[in-house]
Amino acid sequence: VKLWIDGGIRPDRQASISTQDRGLLLGDGLFETIRVAAGAAAHLARHLARLRMGAGVLGIPVPMDQAALGDALGRVIAANALSEGSLRLTLTRGSAARGVLPPEVVTPTLMITASHGGAASGGATVVTASITRRNEQSPLSRIKSLNYLDSILARREAASHGADEAILLNTHGAVAEASCANLLVLADGGLVTPRIEDGALGGVVRACLIEQGAVRERHLLPDDLREAEALFLCNSLGVRAVLRLDGRPVPSRPDCLGRLRRMINATGHRPG
Amino acid sequence: VKLWIDGGIRPDRQASISTQDRGLLLGDGLFETIRVAAGAAAHLARHLARLRMGAGVLGIPVPMDQAALGDALGRVIAANALSEGSLRLTLTRGSAARGVLPPEVVTPTLMITASHGGAASGGATVVTASITRRNEQSPLSRIKSLNYLDSILARREAASHGADEAILLNTHGAVAEASCANLLVLADGGLVTPRIEDGALGGVVRACLIEQGAVRERHLLPDDLREAEALFLCNSLGVRAVLRLDGRPVPSRPDCLGRLRRMINATGHRPG
Repeated sequence: VKLWIDGGIRPDRQASISTQDRGLLLGDGLFETIRVAAGAAAHLARHLARLRMGAGVLGIPVPMDQAALGDALGRVIAANALSEGSLRLTLTRGSAARGVLPPEVVTPTLMITASHGGAASGGATVVTASITRRNEQSPLSRIKSLNYLDSILARREAASHGADEAILLNTHGAVAEASCANLLVLADGGLVTPRIEDGALGGVVRACLIEQGAVRERHLLPDDLREAEALFLCNSLGVRAVLRLDGRPVPSRPDCLGRLRRMINATGHRPG
Repeated sequence: VKLWIDGGIRPDRQASISTQDRGLLLGDGLFETIRVAAGAAAHLARHLARLRMGAGVLGIPVPMDQAALGDALGRVIAANALSEGSLRLTLTRGSAARGVLPPEVVTPTLMITASHGGAASGGATVVTASITRRNEQSPLSRIKSLNYLDSILARREAASHGADEAILLNTHGAVAEASCANLLVLADGGLVTPRIEDGALGGVVRACLIEQGAVRERHLLPDDLREAEALFLCNSLGVRAVLRLDGRPVPSRPDCLGRLRRMINATGHRPG
């Protein structure tokens, strides 16, 4: 496997990260997971726009412009002969001396890695996490930062119940999102998804579905999930149906799932 | 500078971290910052107990017992001829394939680095962060995890106002802690500090002062800080007075500061 690091392609065995990198020491950075389909990065412009937005929130300079980032991603795809799989772009604030406050001048770390093969696409069993809450009162809930421990804790809780995914509530008990996916809820015949202000990350596929009018945002409580006509999980790698929620079966709507997949695939390779 | 990594002492130029380390990719890990005074690690047993507690919350195995960890820390002190300064022990879940869910079998990364010189001990100007809230509803507020971005955001906000430190409120508006210190509040002639359940990290020096009866826990609101007879910041590296809070002067109590320093120094080298 070959990756992009320090401005060029390298074999992964020759690549490593400084022990002083703030991404490692303080979670001080961001990432994007980008689907590769038929050898091309899907929803590329949306991913790069979200990266730049998050970098703005954290005050991390993005060391390349969008064209150069797209080129680097393409070089990782080519170097790995990647047809179906994913890329992960990680941007950290780079190395610095000890301390919480970032230095005035930073040299960010930008790394792009590749994985072959798609994500799980079969139906998922899901539990509502009780161990932690997603903090919708932090700007971090709106960017794809490296601070993923709340999701990891929720996912470990789900796994301890034999479930595939966890749903996180926010600090007020509203539904926010799953540990690594947005939630789509079929209610009253229409698809809705938790609001950004309720702690949902602005997922790339979620945004694409909202823009097409297929999904709209709504404040959702746990009861809304229990009464849903169907539930789906979507992230950059795909859409899955939820089969069971907290041990209870969820109605199946393969027609709806099929329609979502067609919409996402149809738009993935348009610019924007 | 020499550090401990992969089970032994190495020059820092020969040390690096895998690009697949979950500490880097997902903030999946913990750390401790330990003061070194007169060539010895202060409050060592407390730091190692907190590390083990946090590792339990995250389900990361600690790869060495307390005696071996103490020995490794001592070897980093010796290798760097460190008399006054600090050690940082970082424990991550190690390298793994893509995904939020940790693998069944992990090989944790354990790294110990050294810094010469103490922390700032002069008075600090402080502002109350408005950009984010500390999530007291997450178990992460009670462990010293690598997810430090809320503190970084708060600290950047303080710096943008020319201040040295930021105070974080919790999701209910109560006072939690500063970006890298606990807060001590002189009120009605006694010292109080925000409660763990309000989002304060269980600081090692904080615990030591509580155990000695010098400080007690209390639910504190921003108004309590404004009306305080004095304010102090304490962390493993020392205690400082707060000079100004949100632009307003805070009363000075050098007698109280001196007493706190004597108590902390007197107990730092006892086991426990």
